[in-house]
Amino acid sequence: MPTISHKGLSMPESPIRKLVPFAEEAYKKGKTVYHLNIGQPDIKTPDIALDAVKVHSLDILAYTRSEGSDEYRHKIANYYKKHDIHLTHKDIIVTTGGSEALLFAFGTIMDVDDEIIIPEPFYANYNGFSTASGVNIVPVISKIEDNFALPPIEEFENLITNKTKAILICNPGNPTGYLYSKDEIQKLASIVKKHNLFLIADEVYREFAYDGHQHYSIMQEESLKEHAIMIDSVSKRYSMCGARIGCLVSKNKEVIKTVLKFAQARLSPPTLAQIASEAALETPQSYFDAVIEEYVDRRNTLIQELQKIKGVKVAKPKGAFYCIVELPIKNADTFAQWLLEEFDINNETVMIAPAAGFYSTPYVGLNQVRIAYVLKKESLIKAVNILKEALKIYKG
Amino acid sequence: MPTISHKGLSMPESPIRKLVPFAEEAYKKGKTVYHLNIGQPDIKTPDIALDAVKVHSLDILAYTRSEGSDEYRHKIANYYKKHDIHLTHKDIIVTTGGSEALLFAFGTIMDVDDEIIIPEPFYANYNGFSTASGVNIVPVISKIEDNFALPPIEEFENLITNKTKAILICNPGNPTGYLYSKDEIQKLASIVKKHNLFLIADEVYREFAYDGHQHYSIMQEESLKEHAIMIDSVSKRYSMCGARIGCLVSKNKEVIKTVLKFAQARLSPPTLAQIASEAALETPQSYFDAVIEEYVDRRNTLIQELQKIKGVKVAKPKGAFYCIVELPIKNADTFAQWLLEEFDINNETVMIAPAAGFYSTPYVGLNQVRIAYVLKKESLIKAVNILKEALKIYKG
Repeated sequence: MPTISHKGLSMPESPIRKLVPFAEEAYKKGKTVYHLNIGQPDIKTPDIALDAVKVHSLDILAYTRSEGSDEYRHKIANYYKKHDIHLTHKDIIVTTGGSEALLFAFGTIMDVDDEIIIPEPFYANYNGFSTASGVNIVPVISKIEDNFALPPIEEFENLITNKTKAILICNPGNPTGYLYSKDEIQKLASIVKKHNLFLIADEVYREFAYDGHQHYSIMQEESLKEHAIMIDSVSKRYSMCGARIGCLVSKNKEVIKTVLKFAQARLSPPTLAQIASEAALETPQSYFDAVIEEYVDRRNTLIQELQKIKGVKVAKPKGAFYCIVELPIKNADTFAQWLLEEFDINNETVMIAPAAGFYSTPYVGLNQVRIAYVLKKESLIKAVNILKEALKIYKG
Repeated sequence: MPTISHKGLSMPESPIRKLVPFAEEAYKKGKTVYHLNIGQPDIKTPDIALDAVKVHSLDILAYTRSEGSDEYRHKIANYYKKHDIHLTHKDIIVTTGGSEALLFAFGTIMDVDDEIIIPEPFYANYNGFSTASGVNIVPVISKIEDNFALPPIEEFENLITNKTKAILICNPGNPTGYLYSKDEIQKLASIVKKHNLFLIADEVYREFAYDGHQHYSIMQEESLKEHAIMIDSVSKRYSMCGARIGCLVSKNKEVIKTVLKFAQARLSPPTLAQIASEAALETPQSYFDAVIEEYVDRRNTLIQELQKIKGVKVAKPKGAFYCIVELPIKNADTFAQWLLEEFDINNETVMIAPAAGFYSTPYVGLNQVRIAYVLKKESLIKAVNILKEALKIYKG
């Protein structure tokens, strides 16, 4: 039998999805599973986006330009303008989700064995993208005690080698919910300029900033012109994860030129989803106001309920819709599986994402889980209660 | 300024798309451009597929499973059954176009510097995917004089090293239009088994087999069970290139398990396009009959018109909708650009894809172009006439 590549064997299983078979077994037994494991919100997609594809007048579902349709890119530039991010459509390449934007960015700036520094815990699929790209993540540990704020900038600087090509942040953070301040972004800016690195920021949760905090984009930092690569997506903004439309944004013309070559090889991003995404840009502010209010309410409920459980530690998120929770257990992997296989209250159980997969340092975060507060308040209360009762009897 | 990776700099420009800026300049001058450069058919997408998204009842445009929705995969398996290809939905991973399926296949079976043998000329983007994956294409030249039939199997065998992981074919071939016979497939089968390699077949043009020839899939070759990886796509079959839905098919369970890890990292293929693609499976046979008849007619017209031009050599395609044409010029790149920039008849000109980008051997195919017969007969006649007149006065 021919053999699988080392790369293939090294590809991490998604901590968000690897327990899916156990969830399916639970369904078969008639259990209800509260999905706190995945960032798939139950928030309705704006009608304007859903309706746009219903009235399409296409005769041929054709390729668009590899960089996305011109009209859509112009409108995206206009959207950024409203967020005080000033650029033109030429700085934007439309991608198949933020995922593809990250893969293109990695390919554009890194060769095999190059290094990228990322504060951890980080979005688990960064591990997959780095393995697929043959590059190495060098983690800087951020701490639950600090709400996962930016670690001291010296810790980044100490890790820079001649292999280091970039620093990557997610802001607001998945899985931490931390929102970097302008001051923190500027600290990162000064270090990437000093060492001639790229700064990649995954800003797909831009709108999800709570408690009056303002999101500060790396694209607002003028001096980063040649250094900044922003990753974006419609998935969370408009609750349209299934569209698979994102974009890569940079004012560095060499970056855009190179990303375009990767984009041309795969021909074009999905056409129907671009129609929906272009329409989604007309979503009224009232939609966001209601969604943000809902998430703040959910977050407050979740934190409040979690804090009632003995031995549980939780960082208070300022953005996105995740939080990292430390549980009084040894191994969240086996606990999460046990919840699906062995535990229920009135035939209901809960699915959580073990946090170890959000770290690249081995044996860190083993007692942590990521909880996505993507369910209604009542469901969150029930789900946390299930966790509480489960922890009482769990002997892991 | 931080630097672009060697990989990024090495990424080839798409020969199909790199002349687009010159075409755009031509439009600005008010010229009509006949696009023979890209496999974007003018054939109507089946209504059943276009209409399916118009009546969707989604409230939330959510992720599907990473491997594609179960229902869709079951229906794909059923489609293959009608083509005498017997497998289950578990052997199928739905991808974002055939492009992503190829990238997943490359990542699953090859590490950096591994080798894949491909008869050339081949689909140009294989160059991009191999550069992106850090692997090397080892070409075997097939010849226009043989209509690009499979080169002698010894030529493959002579190139196998301990780095060789696979042989890749496109069947029917883009850009050659050649359809491999059962005998040729079996020759490839025996060599991959002997040397324990994978055989990847890009079969996205399966339906486009002409003159009574039958397509023979690598999946029909029972003995290839552990060796065969098939790449497929809805793009050409239903003239829905913009859907960006394809799949990777293999009975090798380790392959599928590994591909799934790549698929999970990017979350899911596009949801709306899966709805359209699932509906497209209900396309009646009459649609294909009409389309095949149309393509045969176009091919015959194209070949007939091309053969009228002095010094032009053309292989007669048995499938797909491309042919490689040898022109009495030195460099097709400058000629193609000149056609857009300098030449017109009554303000009409033609865009062709220089064939050098479909070879990986340097300096081969410089006087060849790929012509996609994706336009109506009348347009093809006009376009070839433009070529003919252009060749009369071209001094390149």
